[in-house]
Amino acid sequence: MRKGGPFNLSSHRLDPLIDGIFAVALTVLVLEVKVPELKNPSSARELLDAVGASLPLVIAYFVSFALLGMFWVWHHGLKDKIKRIDGALLFCTLTFLALVCFFPFAAAVFGRYMIYGNVVCLLVYLPLVGLILALQLLYFYLAMRRGLILDEVTPQEAMTTHRRNLYSLAIFLFSCTPAALIVGLSLALICFVCGGLLVYAGIRHRSR
Amino acid sequence: MRKGGPFNLSSHRLDPLIDGIFAVALTVLVLEVKVPELKNPSSARELLDAVGASLPLVIAYFVSFALLGMFWVWHHGLKDKIKRIDGALLFCTLTFLALVCFFPFAAAVFGRYMIYGNVVCLLVYLPLVGLILALQLLYFYLAMRRGLILDEVTPQEAMTTHRRNLYSLAIFLFSCTPAALIVGLSLALICFVCGGLLVYAGIRHRSR
Amino acid sequence: MRKGGPFNLSSHRLDPLIDGIFAVALTVLVLEVKVPELKNPSSARELLDAVGASLPLVIAYFVSFALLGMFWVWHHGLKDKIKRIDGALLFCTLTFLALVCFFPFAAAVFGRYMIYGNVVCLLVYLPLVGLILALQLLYFYLAMRRGLILDEVTPQEAMTTHRRNLYSLAIFLFSCTPAALIVGLSLALICFVCGGLLVYAGIRHRSR
Amino acid sequence: MRKGGPFNLSSHRLDPLIDGIFAVALTVLVLEVKVPELKNPSSARELLDAVGASLPLVIAYFVSFALLGMFWVWHHGLKDKIKRIDGALLFCTLTFLALVCFFPFAAAVFGRYMIYGNVVCLLVYLPLVGLILALQLLYFYLAMRRGLILDEVTPQEAMTTHRRNLYSLAIFLFSCTPAALIVGLSLALICFVCGGLLVYAGIRHRSR
Repeated sequence: MRKGGPFNLSSHRLDPLIDGIFAVALTVLVLEVKVPELKNPSSARELLDAVGASLPLVIAYFVSFALLGMFWVWHHGLKDKIKRIDGALLFCTLTFLALVCFFPFAAAVFGRYMIYGNVVCLLVYLPLVGLILALQLLYFYLAMRRGLILDEVTPQEAMTTHRRNLYSLAIFLFSCTPAALIVGLSLALICFVCGGLLVYAGIRHRSR
Repeated sequence: MRKGGPFNLSSHRLDPLIDGIFAVALTVLVLEVKVPELKNPSSARELLDAVGASLPLVIAYFVSFALLGMFWVWHHGLKDKIKRIDGALLFCTLTFLALVCFFPFAAAVFGRYMIYGNVVCLLVYLPLVGLILALQLLYFYLAMRRGLILDEVTPQEAMTTHRRNLYSLAIFLFSCTPAALIVGLSLALICFVCGGLLVYAGIRHRSR
Repeated sequence: MRKGGPFNLSSHRLDPLIDGIFAVALTVLVLEVKVPELKNPSSARELLDAVGASLPLVIAYFVSFALLGMFWVWHHGLKDKIKRIDGALLFCTLTFLALVCFFPFAAAVFGRYMIYGNVVCLLVYLPLVGLILALQLLYFYLAMRRGLILDEVTPQEAMTTHRRNLYSLAIFLFSCTPAALIVGLSLALICFVCGGLLVYAGIRHRSR
Repeated sequence: MRKGGPFNLSSHRLDPLIDGIFAVALTVLVLEVKVPELKNPSSARELLDAVGASLPLVIAYFVSFALLGMFWVWHHGLKDKIKRIDGALLFCTLTFLALVCFFPFAAAVFGRYMIYGNVVCLLVYLPLVGLILALQLLYFYLAMRRGLILDEVTPQEAMTTHRRNLYSLAIFLFSCTPAALIVGLSLALICFVCGGLLVYAGIRHRSR
């Protein structure tokens, strides 16, 4: 069954690990919402205030949950079009999972300091989301290059998926441009130009 | 195999994620029962008192475990009657899972402050349980509306399941009515009326 | 496929939940071994002492891991002889899982206070192990009573398994007798007599 | 289906537990990277410094993630060549999993104190990695000895896999030799000699 290198796995082999890591990461997200410590544990007003104060954290939790959930659906959508996983794709998947596990930390920093208007927390959160998006793009691009796409998937379909990945990353980069201004004009320009290049790559693929 | 939109999954595709999230949420529940810190670690009496003091937390843990276990059995019962999961059902499931992950926080707040008679903790716990019940109801209702029920399940069986969902939520709302009085008479009335409407909807479906 | 009550599941349906909960509980066990906080982080001697001081915790961790691992193997061994899970067995399994999730707490209390010779921690650990053993016994006994044993398993084989469950609990109770003396002679007597009754029940089943 | 002792499982039976434990251990790794506590939560500079200060921890996290990921791939590679798991292999696997669960602790100690140049943390991290490697070697060696290798795998292939395990452990021991000098010359010598013996064993197997 297995041929080629030592890292030649069926594409469904990694599924339990991926699902397990997402399940834990999604649950760990909420651990940042801490049970409030009250000075007077029987005071209704104090508990109400404490619960109200953790509302921004709760909203940040649901946003991060939605993002991670979207990544899960997206990754499985891509993986369903792939027949085998070789060394390069395995490396992509493990790096992707490492970043997913890192997500609760970024979400916690974001939820804790965004309410104080501390924009530095965006510099942890946004690059992480960007890296995850870029890895998804790379994952599918490598699968296309290495002829690992399922035979049922036509080249046009594969190319459409690839173009959608390109546009997703481009949209993300464009929407990051204002946030990149925090660091400096040059980073904002880099974001904008990279986004433009991705759109251009997508359009060029289309015309072929 | 896959047809229609990009979110057209087999109903068993989400199973590992659902089971994983429940497994983690159920285990995280108990993390709230903290190991007591003793001033004199070799004092038998002190440890006995500390363990005794965490008894309400232990009871709260078993109640929450039973509730989450019931949700797991219930959700799988509903999902077994569904053939495919489209975008709307996927959204329902992910929101359901987000609330399940949130459950350990609510259970911790409940376990910590209920013993002090602080009724505000009910305002975190009960709405969460209510939302989970409402999402289960919505999940199956959408599946019925969108013709995603398995062919083996007769319309009568599906309707019976839907009615049982309606009555469960109604019973929950009725039993919440006294607790809603904490906030005010108007909320209690809303609970009571909503419960009544659900019972009415269930009866109307029956007569058809 | 499904017949009878609403809780009539294939015996493999609970597998992902059981495996997931064991996986999390086994990993959570080690969280009690805390990273030591040093006054002088670059002092080799201080770190060596701190790591040495957590050695009893590490040993307690491996003992608890072995116990939980044994429960996992045992439960799957019993479950493999069962064809369907009805309401009573589902309840047994969920209670068993609730106790398994509770295990890391008991192991943490045990590991923290046993080194101080505080015997009270045995009063948390041993009853929990005993309850888990008793639930396994009950689980298989109910399956036998309700005719849910697989047809491939002969009544003799089923009875041998049941007798082994009886003897395991009896051995546990006998070995607990000295520990029960901490609380009082009466509890030790109860342990001893219950163990004897279980051995008697096992022998009586044999002669039939 | 099952024959022989009570611990005669299909080699895929342990998969969900292994995948679950790895999923949790990988996610728990990152919990050591704590959200920084700022004196002035709205200070951009302070947050930037705090995030920068946790950079060594982040790098340690990715190194440990890569190591654990490699162990996962490796263990599944070995297990795919095995047809059944008997008592000895089950014991090996559970011990392997116990060490995997212990990995986040070692990684946390390493990440926390390596930056202070405290070499004692290597005495926690490296023996753990070595033990995991040795257990993998033992696992496959026992499977070969007990005739549990799949029939599709030729003896030459099995021997090649075994030799690769031997060389991996040897390379690890050679690279540990300098670190063993911290404790003393004798430990370094032991490491070096053991590595040499493993290489010799590998070469002797080859010539056969």
